[in-house]
Amino acid sequence: MEYNERFRCAALYERVMSAEEAALLIEDGSTVAVSGFTPSGCPKMVPLAIAEQVRSGRRRLRLTLLSSASTGPELDSAWGELGIIARRLPYMTSSELRRAVNGGGPEPVAYTDIHIGEVAQNARLGFYGKIDTAIVEAAALTEDGGIVPTTALGCSQTFIDLAGRVIIELNLAQPAALEGLHDVYRVGDPPRRGPIPLTGVGDRIGTPYLRCPAEKIAAVVVGAAEEHPRPLAPEDEVSRAIAANIVRFLAREKEAGRLSADELPLQSGVGSVANAVLFGLKNAGFSHLRFYSEVMQDGILDLIDAGKADFASATSLSLSKEGMARLLGDLERYRDKLVLRDSEISNSAELIRRLGVIAMNTAVEADIYGNVNSSQMNGTTVYNGIGGSGDYARNAAISIFMTNSVAKGGKISSIVPMVTHVDHSEHDVDVIVTEQGFADLRGLSPKERAARIIENCAHPDYRAQLRAYFEAACAATHGAQTPHLLDRCFGFHENLRRRGSMLCGEGGEN
Amino acid sequence: MEYNERFRCAALYERVMSAEEAALLIEDGSTVAVSGFTPSGCPKMVPLAIAEQVRSGRRRLRLTLLSSASTGPELDSAWGELGIIARRLPYMTSSELRRAVNGGGPEPVAYTDIHIGEVAQNARLGFYGKIDTAIVEAAALTEDGGIVPTTALGCSQTFIDLAGRVIIELNLAQPAALEGLHDVYRVGDPPRRGPIPLTGVGDRIGTPYLRCPAEKIAAVVVGAAEEHPRPLAPEDEVSRAIAANIVRFLAREKEAGRLSADELPLQSGVGSVANAVLFGLKNAGFSHLRFYSEVMQDGILDLIDAGKADFASATSLSLSKEGMARLLGDLERYRDKLVLRDSEISNSAELIRRLGVIAMNTAVEADIYGNVNSSQMNGTTVYNGIGGSGDYARNAAISIFMTNSVAKGGKISSIVPMVTHVDHSEHDVDVIVTEQGFADLRGLSPKERAARIIENCAHPDYRAQLRAYFEAACAATHGAQTPHLLDRCFGFHENLRRRGSMLCGEGGEN
Repeated sequence: MEYNERFRCAALYERVMSAEEAALLIEDGSTVAVSGFTPSGCPKMVPLAIAEQVRSGRRRLRLTLLSSASTGPELDSAWGELGIIARRLPYMTSSELRRAVNGGGPEPVAYTDIHIGEVAQNARLGFYGKIDTAIVEAAALTEDGGIVPTTALGCSQTFIDLAGRVIIELNLAQPAALEGLHDVYRVGDPPRRGPIPLTGVGDRIGTPYLRCPAEKIAAVVVGAAEEHPRPLAPEDEVSRAIAANIVRFLAREKEAGRLSADELPLQSGVGSVANAVLFGLKNAGFSHLRFYSEVMQDGILDLIDAGKADFASATSLSLSKEGMARLLGDLERYRDKLVLRDSEISNSAELIRRLGVIAMNTAVEADIYGNVNSSQMNGTTVYNGIGGSGDYARNAAISIFMTNSVAKGGKISSIVPMVTHVDHSEHDVDVIVTEQGFADLRGLSPKERAARIIENCAHPDYRAQLRAYFEAACAATHGAQTPHLLDRCFGFHENLRRRGSMLCGEGGEN
Repeated sequence: MEYNERFRCAALYERVMSAEEAALLIEDGSTVAVSGFTPSGCPKMVPLAIAEQVRSGRRRLRLTLLSSASTGPELDSAWGELGIIARRLPYMTSSELRRAVNGGGPEPVAYTDIHIGEVAQNARLGFYGKIDTAIVEAAALTEDGGIVPTTALGCSQTFIDLAGRVIIELNLAQPAALEGLHDVYRVGDPPRRGPIPLTGVGDRIGTPYLRCPAEKIAAVVVGAAEEHPRPLAPEDEVSRAIAANIVRFLAREKEAGRLSADELPLQSGVGSVANAVLFGLKNAGFSHLRFYSEVMQDGILDLIDAGKADFASATSLSLSKEGMARLLGDLERYRDKLVLRDSEISNSAELIRRLGVIAMNTAVEADIYGNVNSSQMNGTTVYNGIGGSGDYARNAAISIFMTNSVAKGGKISSIVPMVTHVDHSEHDVDVIVTEQGFADLRGLSPKERAARIIENCAHPDYRAQLRAYFEAACAATHGAQTPHLLDRCFGFHENLRRRGSMLCGEGGEN
């Protein structure tokens, strides 16, 4: 496509500058908000120019970086490695930034892990201070200055509305065909707002582009920067077994007339297990599936192709390189089956509750009473963050958490006596699924849950050890609601720290 | 008022029976759902008849008791003491039942603690099995069989809709003037439902009475049973100091143009601190206050009388005896300023988010990183439960938790290194308030939060001990996101167990 077909707003021609020039607009100590959600749709040219200015020693910058979720390698990884990020919210997945957040970087990083669905409103209410600059990737600029987003939407409209200045990266490497896929909706702020007028997964309630007053646009950087999506996580036998257990649970619910995956929209996250679930659904007896999720993965295209899925709503196209090629190669066929929404809409409490979403999220560890840790190793070292899992788990019609029963070749049990950090409390967890089976916790008391989680979900190597803890705690607490021994509840984690495995030693000590 | 003015549905005359006869309809092993929310609006006559039948040895009953929140002494206390309750959900506050739930009763009780806003939908989706009998207290029966609720609404409509049979207690001791105060709305089930059409705290969207097919009504018990509301909790100096700090925080927010208590509805719970907050608001510079809460306390009447509050929406009139007399003595003046809603509406994620509620809930303990325990002592013994706190805290525009900094004469610190149970994770807690001050946690990383919570909220006697833990954890974990020492994080609780106080000994050990 011609440059002119992408850059249709002549009034903005005079704002064109190089990425290096635009990068110089960002002042030390300021707050930068960026487009994108996962590596998809993030700005690339200006962030890399900033990194280069810092790497070469020409500038020293310490910034607050606000995004909608995780970002691409041009931001969290490049900036994290160079100590550019002083403060980061609301989520990250970069290993370089993870190291820095946990104290292993060149400079300390203050990282705040926030429910993704709450970021836009909180920002508008002023909880995170002033946003100096928004950098937004665009696939095109329309005649009257509308900004066509690329492979994700996130909080871009709110960031543009709040920012003092806006830098646009018109990225010619992003497909022009993305135009029309987005549905941008301004939610408004309390108390003067009505219902969000969305009642079906496929409803369109907004416009296909972002709006920004021309005077706020400080720079338009035009170039072609390839996106670096995460490769498709390979399926393994364990993922397939987890997926089979989820499908078995969903089939049982449909049979019992309670919840039907044919009727209620599904939320499914990122990663090998999520993809395996999608694959499992393809071969199960469901049809007319609909997705209401944060991200769109390759497996959803498979389901559409197989005639099993009718529609998918997300805020990000988190497809692999192959998946993106496949989508773009046949976009006209997919176009009326997909929509990209603001993350305030994809992760909206109001809409997730209204639509009755079946939520499927991943746990790092779960305890015998059903509390889930999604984020912190040993309660201390953050891995990624809570992301949108809480938006879905809390407001879904039913909340499923899945995990491998063991990690590190069996040295870590994902089922423990007490989780070291709680992201999702017992009140928010309906079903736990591992490759061993599923534990349906609805309506059960904590002691009933313990029996079910240990026997159905824990790895057989750890069951005796979990039973021993539970029985000792029951005996010592005389039938209390949630039996715990505070001096032994982290025994599994102490074993791991001291001996390299959560398994108890020969003597059976814990 | 005459009997005939209350019992206006002649078709139901033939269903009249005594409480003892109606009690015999309840079979052993069945599930009973009851009206009411807090002691307000619960059935009394049939429950007491059941208790008497069991106490006298005529019957042995083990029941599942489902309610909307806690109940009156006729249910949880009387039944809990006699071992009638085999399974209980979603909430309780009775000391007799608390004892039984924690293993000290005549029979074990399986207690499941559930977000109050999710109970009705979960019940309709079949998560809690079949409801055999609903017992509903009524102030009147209308000509065409409408059931006028009494001092609370809760999930009564859903319980009636799901129950195999309905027993009505027409309680002539409840004021007939309550008619018209309720707004009953059927939410419907996913996926085929639209927005809940409520955009203002005072909107009426339903009918003033409950509906029930006449053929389902198995009994109408007519009598006069006094309600036993909880006495007004006395204000003390500490409550007043907490309230003053909340008012100081709200005033600062208004000043900064972020959140205004004059514009956003307030949620305020039950108890001495909640009442002190209401009192504090009366004397602060706010006006046109509106409440969107679960319960209506005496302090709200004060605010209305003082011309400071315009409207209060709740699901329960949890007034003291004096408060109720005052409301009824002048009901026509209050009538257009109050509404009683279904708890599915008062605690709705959709509506709490839309309206932008300022949520104020009570913590049992909070940790230095901002996680809140609302329910379990030592992670083990449940006190009441999570109730509706999570519905509000998660979906509010801002979520405030308040607690005395110490309990038991200083032997317990409410600020601890790690809470022993998490009901509200760090992601759901914006501000912590004690009588010492407030900690505004918005946008802060865990380590920043720790400094603020320790210095602003902890009792001075515990600050050095908390700092020592935090510093030791920081040193040992080398700058990790959430520094913890898993072998010492419950040191405060271990001190309490071993030595009767969380304060460390002379040697400073923890």
